[in-house]
Amino acid sequence: MRYYADPGRAIDLSRLNRVVEESFAEHARGRVQMPPKVYVTLPRGDFRTMPAYIPSLGIAGVKIVNVHPDNPSKGIPSVMAITVILDVETGAPRAILNATELTEMRTGAAGAVAAAHLSPSRSVSLGVVGSGRQAKSQVQAIEKELDVREVLVWSRSEKNASHLCRQFRHLECRTSSLPKVCECEVLVTATPSREPLVRDEWIREGTHINAIGADAPGKEELDPAILRRARVFVDDIMQAAHSGEVNVPISGGLFSIEMIAGTLGEVIIGEKRRMSRDEITVFDSTGLAIQDLAIAAIALESHDGIELTFP
Amino acid sequence: MRYYADPGRAIDLSRLNRVVEESFAEHARGRVQMPPKVYVTLPRGDFRTMPAYIPSLGIAGVKIVNVHPDNPSKGIPSVMAITVILDVETGAPRAILNATELTEMRTGAAGAVAAAHLSPSRSVSLGVVGSGRQAKSQVQAIEKELDVREVLVWSRSEKNASHLCRQFRHLECRTSSLPKVCECEVLVTATPSREPLVRDEWIREGTHINAIGADAPGKEELDPAILRRARVFVDDIMQAAHSGEVNVPISGGLFSIEMIAGTLGEVIIGEKRRMSRDEITVFDSTGLAIQDLAIAAIALESHDGIELTFP
Repeated sequence: MRYYADPGRAIDLSRLNRVVEESFAEHARGRVQMPPKVYVTLPRGDFRTMPAYIPSLGIAGVKIVNVHPDNPSKGIPSVMAITVILDVETGAPRAILNATELTEMRTGAAGAVAAAHLSPSRSVSLGVVGSGRQAKSQVQAIEKELDVREVLVWSRSEKNASHLCRQFRHLECRTSSLPKVCECEVLVTATPSREPLVRDEWIREGTHINAIGADAPGKEELDPAILRRARVFVDDIMQAAHSGEVNVPISGGLFSIEMIAGTLGEVIIGEKRRMSRDEITVFDSTGLAIQDLAIAAIALESHDGIELTFP
Repeated sequence: MRYYADPGRAIDLSRLNRVVEESFAEHARGRVQMPPKVYVTLPRGDFRTMPAYIPSLGIAGVKIVNVHPDNPSKGIPSVMAITVILDVETGAPRAILNATELTEMRTGAAGAVAAAHLSPSRSVSLGVVGSGRQAKSQVQAIEKELDVREVLVWSRSEKNASHLCRQFRHLECRTSSLPKVCECEVLVTATPSREPLVRDEWIREGTHINAIGADAPGKEELDPAILRRARVFVDDIMQAAHSGEVNVPISGGLFSIEMIAGTLGEVIIGEKRRMSRDEITVFDSTGLAIQDLAIAAIALESHDGIELTFP
């Protein structure tokens, strides 16, 4: 059994996009096992247990991830993750991975795969709402899939927005007003907002939106009117209804599960698609255990890590 | 974050019985979180993910355990386990434990606690059906709770039964016929049987039985007539109905969930008990995540283990 303290280091982002894409395709084909996430509540947060098995990738395991919003005040990340990988043939523990960075990377990859399949064109302007780690991961992953002509960033903190842009010197990146950012052809929202930031009137026809931030009940970033105008795809229907961008509008009666057009996996295997250049598409990402296994599969190809005695 | 390769080494069995008892008591008081085990099927077996949180012990985490019956033909154990412990305050990964031996030990402890509360007397003859690791763990744990005057062992393999007895030279231990073993005051069944081994007519009034072997649908060790005569306690009602000793009789209409007298936790906190010296009592053990956390809590008190870089 090996322990990987820094497994993100060796991961090729283009390859990651392809393997995450494969995991979503297998999900749509009904060829993965992925029971619902299990939540356990702790005094100042919670942790989620995410088991899965992807036969086509020969990988099985469990991610365990906490969410503790007050941790940063103690100098500790809010979200930390461990993935345990089991040998598919024997069930023996095969590897343990520090999955904190991997979680960010696999979420970026899902956004990139969604943009690759749903963007109105190959060459795009990319708008980013938010300036945290996930905003960065989305840009890094999307630029592997699309020709990103320019990146416009808005964040509550102008300083943070500028800081994010400085990490993309090879791209045409600048900060802008929220309405201008929302005029881009591909828009990423990656904030912890609990109320809509993006107004309906700012979104042009043909835009593709990756709605990344909402991953728990009560969180939302988009005016529900956008969802009603758009073709909305999700990673997993029940999980999105519970905790994705659509969760608050569904609870409030402004959207319904029946209005979800399909899953990203169905788009990948060609069962669902953008129907016209003019329509708005939304990918509502909540994060699936199969994404965690997909990135772990790549990490395990390297010979990093240390050997642990087991049994 | 620390890794414990051999955490069973330092565990005091008397103390383990008390901490496992505490975890069951908290379970009965409704003060633990323990979602149902989640099963994922692999080509030659399965793995189970078992998250829990015990506030009174200040411990939270997840055990991941496989069951691969054909592994021994490859020289690999059928059952291997890893437990990931999270810090209750921050959710940060705190420790990873090799939990293969711990799983055996915590199961033994539950049997010992059940025998301590349900045995007809403090000084007993102890019958053991089976000669595997769990048979051994049960004897080791029970002798910390009761005055064991003699141990009688039956196994399909007389050689294995003798081998088990040789490990208890300080006890009066010998092999015997199955009917004789079943005449003991406390009886442990710990076989992988899928049909009743213990006949109703062999069980005397007043016997306490730890039914340990049945831990999956289709497994059973006791004639269902014994369950119908007995006061049957379980570790967890839904889990026992699904995979415990009562699962086959329930499926066959010979027993029902309503006939379960209560949980071990309810016995420990005094809400339920043996009602007379003459009645037969049964403890149906399937294994709970809170037991895994209880033993992990003890293991973490030692300074064994190696430090792993995280994050």
